[in-house]
Amino acid sequence: MRTGERMSLDHATTKPHEELAAALADGMGAVNTLIRERMASEHAPRIPEVTAHLVEAGGKRLRPMLVLAAARMCGYRGPYDVHLAATVEFIHTATLLHDDVVDESQQRRGRPTANLLWDNKSSVLVGDYLFARAFQLMTEPGSLRVLRILSDAAATIAEGEVLQMTAAQDLRTDESVYLKVVRGKTAALFSAATEAGGVIAGADDDQVQALFDYGDALGIAFQIVDDLLDYQGDAKATGKNVGDDFRERKLTLPVIKAVARADAEERAFWTRTIEKGKQEDGDLEHAIALLHKHDTLAATRDDALAWADTAKQAMAKLPQSDLRRMLIDLADYVVARIN
Amino acid sequence: MRTGERMSLDHATTKPHEELAAALADGMGAVNTLIRERMASEHAPRIPEVTAHLVEAGGKRLRPMLVLAAARMCGYRGPYDVHLAATVEFIHTATLLHDDVVDESQQRRGRPTANLLWDNKSSVLVGDYLFARAFQLMTEPGSLRVLRILSDAAATIAEGEVLQMTAAQDLRTDESVYLKVVRGKTAALFSAATEAGGVIAGADDDQVQALFDYGDALGIAFQIVDDLLDYQGDAKATGKNVGDDFRERKLTLPVIKAVARADAEERAFWTRTIEKGKQEDGDLEHAIALLHKHDTLAATRDDALAWADTAKQAMAKLPQSDLRRMLIDLADYVVARIN
Repeated sequence: MRTGERMSLDHATTKPHEELAAALADGMGAVNTLIRERMASEHAPRIPEVTAHLVEAGGKRLRPMLVLAAARMCGYRGPYDVHLAATVEFIHTATLLHDDVVDESQQRRGRPTANLLWDNKSSVLVGDYLFARAFQLMTEPGSLRVLRILSDAAATIAEGEVLQMTAAQDLRTDESVYLKVVRGKTAALFSAATEAGGVIAGADDDQVQALFDYGDALGIAFQIVDDLLDYQGDAKATGKNVGDDFRERKLTLPVIKAVARADAEERAFWTRTIEKGKQEDGDLEHAIALLHKHDTLAATRDDALAWADTAKQAMAKLPQSDLRRMLIDLADYVVARIN
Repeated sequence: MRTGERMSLDHATTKPHEELAAALADGMGAVNTLIRERMASEHAPRIPEVTAHLVEAGGKRLRPMLVLAAARMCGYRGPYDVHLAATVEFIHTATLLHDDVVDESQQRRGRPTANLLWDNKSSVLVGDYLFARAFQLMTEPGSLRVLRILSDAAATIAEGEVLQMTAAQDLRTDESVYLKVVRGKTAALFSAATEAGGVIAGADDDQVQALFDYGDALGIAFQIVDDLLDYQGDAKATGKNVGDDFRERKLTLPVIKAVARADAEERAFWTRTIEKGKQEDGDLEHAIALLHKHDTLAATRDDALAWADTAKQAMAKLPQSDLRRMLIDLADYVVARIN
């Protein structure tokens, strides 16, 4: 708490995830130690090689921080929030390894991907190892309810990934399918993190529901912002090239909204470029012009802001604390890039 | 039990796994129903397509039968043995999907593999979905001890697969490493199946240990036989081509024993063919000649028989029953192909 109070003094200049990292520094230290311990494999040194490449590449560790923050703001004083935090980071890392195989990615967080440095085999099998380690870890707190939350999240994630694979290039994909994909890709692990944190702390049902709702809405806002920046981002600031999703024929929210409003000629354009993948010079520019014509970038932005608002309203149901304020700031921060 | 008694009359002509299938027919029917139910995905129809291809291709369902047999011989009368049986089949199916990606296989059980029919993406992601479904299923009996057994097995499997990938072409791989790989590939899920069956039935610690030992030894015997048949099998009877492992540069027990007894010239041969993969016409014949020179096929056969014997001795510690007799017969049957 004291660290949190000190950090709040320069609240205006510190980013919310940095402020969370400072407030949760002791717990996150324990999480990192546990992650390194459980990544080890006496028999198969390839495992720590691959995982260290990814785990120590310096992601923001947002998911484990959400577990610790949720547990602590509900009064939990350890030690199993650390296990659950490491669990969600293992699940996240495993999905990144498998995603890179599926997407045939070359770079992740500015570094070559594991499938490029080693091979697809290593990425698949080490991912499986991390999933298994995650499930071992999550049995340790001895809470069946937590086990159900996390195994349900793992199923939602995998189902969302399969759905994305089959729905991404299908023009019939509507906003409700998009939302399922987004929950699988991002929101399911966010909401499992906050919900499991509350459960382990023994929070009451209303608080647990509010924590779930916060993680769910935060994750959805996060992913919508990501998809929006793909069409209107500043490459220097976001590290993304405008139009990657279009070139990879991924139906995301701005396009789904434009398809819904398309006339016959526009529909033929989307069918050719997304469904059939026959793209020509100038298609990206025409696609962006159609998004502007139907005002779908603004509509997508409004959706992201509404989800951030839902997250903040959910968080408001929890007792006031420094951590609560940081999580509310985090919801604002996630959408600040597009506002 | 009655089905079991009836089946035992024509015991001489019925294979033990067929006899088990008949004795456990009601339970296996429930397992198959549950598998079909939990494979379904409302949102991602690709999932049941892929899993049906594999799950309904007609494997022997040995692993779920081991769960049911272990639970029932210890007096369990349901219903959660069915959940655990479906769990181990899901884990097994997930590992097959990922193995086929890793090995770039074209055929499995005489049919084109899923990665060939769909793509590697589908195999990776649907495998992940089955893992997640397995973990959901295994929370349902509400036994933390069972959860630990199965999540430990999942970690051993993944670690064994990674170890195999790095050790298979390394001449320093000795029999103890081989045993770790074999436990990962085969024995860990067999022993988890029998152990979890005993635990859910409330068997005492000695019986649970005996059930674990049976599954462990049966799985090891099973895999050693498989590796031996690769060098001396009858392609028509086994469906395997002699020398596949040699061509794929996999160090298995007959070769590991030959490497341990190799003189300098023989060592150079193994280094060239296995470690460096520079194989020429006549190399397979020379390799087989070296296995005969050092009598390692016979030594490997002796090891398999000894493991089958260990399995039978473990089973003898459980109370007499028809199911116990069938499991003892199964251990004999597994090694009968080489005896």
